[in-house]
Amino acid sequence: MTVTTSSAAGTPFGRIPVTKVSPVIEGGAYPAKAAVGEAIPIRATVFREGHDAVNAHVVLTDPSGAERVEPMAPSTPLGFDWWAAEVTLETEGAWTFRVEGWDDPWATWVHNAEIKIPAGIDVALVGTEGKALLEAGARAATEADDDEAATQLQDARAALDSDQQVEDRLEVVLAEDVRAAMATHGPRLLLSPSPEYPVFVDRRTAVFGSWYEFFPRSQGASYDPETQTWVSGTFDSSYERVEAAAAMGFDVIYLPPIHPIGTAFRKGPNNTLTPGPADPGSPWAIGNVEGGHDAIHPDLGDFDSFDRFVAKVKSHGMEVALDFALQASPDHPWVSDHPEWFSARPDGSIAYAENPPKKYQDIFPINFDRDKEGIYAESLRLLKLWMSHGVRIFRVDNPHTKPVDFWAWLLAEVRRTDPDVLFLAEAFTKPAMMHALGKAGFQQGYTYFTWRNEKWELEEYLTELTGESDSFFRPNFFVNTPDILPMYLQTGGRTAFTIRAVLAATLAPTWGVYSGFELFENAPLGQGREEYLDSEKFQYRPRDWSGAEASGQNLNLLLGTLNAIRREHPALQQLRNLHFHHAPNADVVVFSKRAGDDVVLVVVSVDPLNTHESEIVLDMAALGLGTADVFLVHDELTGQTFRWGQRAFVRLTVDDPAHILTLVRPGRRSSGQPSAAPAPEEQ
Amino acid sequence: MTVTTSSAAGTPFGRIPVTKVSPVIEGGAYPAKAAVGEAIPIRATVFREGHDAVNAHVVLTDPSGAERVEPMAPSTPLGFDWWAAEVTLETEGAWTFRVEGWDDPWATWVHNAEIKIPAGIDVALVGTEGKALLEAGARAATEADDDEAATQLQDARAALDSDQQVEDRLEVVLAEDVRAAMATHGPRLLLSPSPEYPVFVDRRTAVFGSWYEFFPRSQGASYDPETQTWVSGTFDSSYERVEAAAAMGFDVIYLPPIHPIGTAFRKGPNNTLTPGPADPGSPWAIGNVEGGHDAIHPDLGDFDSFDRFVAKVKSHGMEVALDFALQASPDHPWVSDHPEWFSARPDGSIAYAENPPKKYQDIFPINFDRDKEGIYAESLRLLKLWMSHGVRIFRVDNPHTKPVDFWAWLLAEVRRTDPDVLFLAEAFTKPAMMHALGKAGFQQGYTYFTWRNEKWELEEYLTELTGESDSFFRPNFFVNTPDILPMYLQTGGRTAFTIRAVLAATLAPTWGVYSGFELFENAPLGQGREEYLDSEKFQYRPRDWSGAEASGQNLNLLLGTLNAIRREHPALQQLRNLHFHHAPNADVVVFSKRAGDDVVLVVVSVDPLNTHESEIVLDMAALGLGTADVFLVHDELTGQTFRWGQRAFVRLTVDDPAHILTLVRPGRRSSGQPSAAPAPEEQ
Repeated sequence: MTVTTSSAAGTPFGRIPVTKVSPVIEGGAYPAKAAVGEAIPIRATVFREGHDAVNAHVVLTDPSGAERVEPMAPSTPLGFDWWAAEVTLETEGAWTFRVEGWDDPWATWVHNAEIKIPAGIDVALVGTEGKALLEAGARAATEADDDEAATQLQDARAALDSDQQVEDRLEVVLAEDVRAAMATHGPRLLLSPSPEYPVFVDRRTAVFGSWYEFFPRSQGASYDPETQTWVSGTFDSSYERVEAAAAMGFDVIYLPPIHPIGTAFRKGPNNTLTPGPADPGSPWAIGNVEGGHDAIHPDLGDFDSFDRFVAKVKSHGMEVALDFALQASPDHPWVSDHPEWFSARPDGSIAYAENPPKKYQDIFPINFDRDKEGIYAESLRLLKLWMSHGVRIFRVDNPHTKPVDFWAWLLAEVRRTDPDVLFLAEAFTKPAMMHALGKAGFQQGYTYFTWRNEKWELEEYLTELTGESDSFFRPNFFVNTPDILPMYLQTGGRTAFTIRAVLAATLAPTWGVYSGFELFENAPLGQGREEYLDSEKFQYRPRDWSGAEASGQNLNLLLGTLNAIRREHPALQQLRNLHFHHAPNADVVVFSKRAGDDVVLVVVSVDPLNTHESEIVLDMAALGLGTADVFLVHDELTGQTFRWGQRAFVRLTVDDPAHILTLVRPGRRSSGQPSAAPAPEEQ
Repeated sequence: MTVTTSSAAGTPFGRIPVTKVSPVIEGGAYPAKAAVGEAIPIRATVFREGHDAVNAHVVLTDPSGAERVEPMAPSTPLGFDWWAAEVTLETEGAWTFRVEGWDDPWATWVHNAEIKIPAGIDVALVGTEGKALLEAGARAATEADDDEAATQLQDARAALDSDQQVEDRLEVVLAEDVRAAMATHGPRLLLSPSPEYPVFVDRRTAVFGSWYEFFPRSQGASYDPETQTWVSGTFDSSYERVEAAAAMGFDVIYLPPIHPIGTAFRKGPNNTLTPGPADPGSPWAIGNVEGGHDAIHPDLGDFDSFDRFVAKVKSHGMEVALDFALQASPDHPWVSDHPEWFSARPDGSIAYAENPPKKYQDIFPINFDRDKEGIYAESLRLLKLWMSHGVRIFRVDNPHTKPVDFWAWLLAEVRRTDPDVLFLAEAFTKPAMMHALGKAGFQQGYTYFTWRNEKWELEEYLTELTGESDSFFRPNFFVNTPDILPMYLQTGGRTAFTIRAVLAATLAPTWGVYSGFELFENAPLGQGREEYLDSEKFQYRPRDWSGAEASGQNLNLLLGTLNAIRREHPALQQLRNLHFHHAPNADVVVFSKRAGDDVVLVVVSVDPLNTHESEIVLDMAALGLGTADVFLVHDELTGQTFRWGQRAFVRLTVDDPAHILTLVRPGRRSSGQPSAAPAPEEQ
């Protein structure tokens, strides 16, 4: 008889069962997401038969194949056999991990000895068993060249043979250093590995970055009333905006499509169907006789000026993100060269986009099923073209209208050769699709943040984003987009803009602003509409930046402060470390983020129209503090310092609707704080 | 370029993504549980890109390899892309299933046509598209020899070409029968299968059965005061109890171990360490010079009398379940023949069972790691021996003290050749282990029911058992065991016994009674103890059955009624169909079970000491009724009939703490109800 187990079948129980391992995406078919330096929780249920002690560790394999073992510990609530470790992966690339459960004879022995020795039961036998275990530990320490541990363990073993009182002998053996040495070198028996699960470690920008979006054609554009024509802005005329974004501390400059724009069924201002000859059309209606996705709109410049633009952005420590919108205007070269890439209607014509009764005749959607090889190859070619011009981030337009398996293939192909290239999914749709795109490879996604304005819904949504979906869906919190002028901004005045910027910049490690936000642009297309009036999608929109600066009608200083705080504080650069605290006032949101010693505590009102006061009750453990601790908090927005305990009182006004507080620990000065002297004021 | 997707890696996204398929146990490593005739929910998240319609079905493959397709439907809450089907598997054995998502061009067309035709948009084109789809459907119907559907679809296609008003043409095409024919024969494009997942369909007894446990040695045992010795009961002297169990409607007779009992460190009455010469010892201390697990205790009989006993049980339509306790007394033949099957201590002695400071010197636990091949083979040999003597159910003692992977192997081996053999896990331990044993192959497990007495905890626990764990953990609700005399029974009198029997027999399709329960035995070993005084585990315990019958101190009639109701009502024979209803009174539990037309509604007080009155508010949809319906309910316990609506009023007393109500539908008479005339009483 051969004793075989069903291990071939999938993820069965090993000798020591290890189940419910996380993060595991679709059974391990896709890698869990991590970024360099990010703290990642590894969890599993590990248990065994009978009374003997079980233990567990995680084995991490880096992209070079080197393994490293990190201990796991029982996780709360205790009693459910949950084990956990928090690990940090420092190298970009494809990692794997497995959880190993094991029989821990040393822990079993300690448990038994602590009961039996004081009770005088089996004293000699317990001593003999202990010596054998300590000898094994000493041997392992010697083999691992850990001479200090080897000596400790040999000494402990000798103590068991000494003529001390038996309780004293036990005390020597159970000393802190002996336990630590045995934790490292003690026997790990019946080692039972889980399957190997993939984690992909992206570069830091995948999780942490501040995005700024603008239309180059508006920067420096001018209208000639005599000829009734526009002169378009160009890459070259956009440098001032690049410099402004850099001054505000942004990391990524995101450009809407820069390709030739279709003329057939071109849209006029405010999405009308009757454009004038001077109307530039929507950049998302891609392609005309001058070229398609591989061409540059001649009004903006050429490849040389694009390369100069990319270099200019880089010179400020930023990078360019380009739009990738897989659709064609009826004038796109694909339409004549590759009609098989589109759907044909029974009358032989190419099907334009529809959502009956609406027709979008300026857009031909791609059919990914008619010539799969062809359109897949073309998509990859396009990405590689722009990658070769320095684009390492793509913001993908409406990925949820293209097959998920297409994205899974395309993004895997890119990652294989260029693991630093990042993709942001512009998918505003149902959860299953948004999650699938994340699992299929998108490093980031747009979110429902735009429509989460109340305290309860922010807490609920952020708990989901930083918990159950944190390993496959990374949020990018845009406060506005050319498509979305949130209702909240339409009615809440300057305070609403401040609140939303503070929330986006501190709740999420990646956030974004579409230019115009800082000028408080808030005129909608109509009552109850979420589109901008005179949307930049359909017309040139030069802005009076210097006038705004002079009049104070500009949020650029706040945006710069927020981005500076984000750079200063590692706690704001992670996704999973968010913790909400209690405030009885339903308009006051309190949360903290913590990374090691760095703790940022944010208190913000979500009501832009009224003053709010509230007691707040802090979960001190989440701040790394004891319940009775008193500590200083420094407001990074106002420069004030307060002395707080577990309970504090806050007052948030229309002028100052938020505190971004950093914890000042003894012996550590918070940045921006003039002195470590006791705080002059308390609130 | 070759377009490959990552399908090799596991469960990636297909062209139409199908995710979160259930029931799937450990990624498909172990089969989900089902029983012949049981209604099993199949669920998945199915979605797609863009606006076109998606659809889904489940493909069921029976043990012979034959496939059958059942439609799935969107599942509530809508909007989350959840799809579901309820399927019934009629053949015992190893099934598989997969969910297939597909592009549904007919549904897309219907959606578009219903908007476009009335609006006069693209009328001709829509007609052309519709004709092509109906033609394809008619062709498929013809190929499937469904002539009726083929004719319907050809007629509908012709209607689109008729000279009727276009709206009238559309009405013909969208008629019920055309839609039904297209649902069956319409094109299913981009078919995207999930992986194939296993389901094992057990015989009905795996999910539905009533168990009765007794010790043969007590049946007909007699004490001779002169010689101060006992004459043990035997298999042959147990027939009266077999007949009594049959009369009470039980299905399974469960016997504690029937093997020779060790003499070394034998336990005396009430678990004392000083037995007298006449004390029989615990049947779980298995093995002495007369043999081990493959022998029969000579006091009980021999293999011939055991075979007769099995036949006797069968003659009453019942079957025998035997205890399988993998441990040895120090006298067991294994100890001398196979010392390698036990753990050795440093002094060379065999390790007895311990949970320091407690020692169990009468028991040697098996070490499954020292001679894996040997002990695995022996375990299988023992099971096959008893199987060859007609035992097709084993109640496994303390499986959680043996390795999970041992059980996974052993149970798979048995199932391979004898798929009708069932195993009940006697594991009272933490959830991870109890669930793992179910996943590893145990058809049933003991539960926490014993300690769930309050309404809220019954609702919470049953929701878990009939929901999240229903496909890997099947509960067997014992009201008592030789090890457990629940506190509730110690203090609640006859009413407590009634309540617990009603709850166990109606909440769970499988329940069990250890004999003595029906005599209201409730004396504990001591204050606060859950063990029986004078436990039958350690001594003979003949009972005065006829005296109890005569005095009315016997619950046998209630047990018989409960089992009769269970046999009569398919709704009580399933696990997953439980639904709780609202009663404001925190001591009144209301639940229903439904299988097709059969609906049983149970109202029970959990307070054995007081009368309780309550309004109850029924979830009418769960009963298959409309909110305004009025209906008759027949109390199967008292014979009363009531006319009820969504709201009703109940009064539960110490004498009548429960209603077991069956719904009487128009034109259908409930069993036991004398007439279908309007009810004489209302409550």
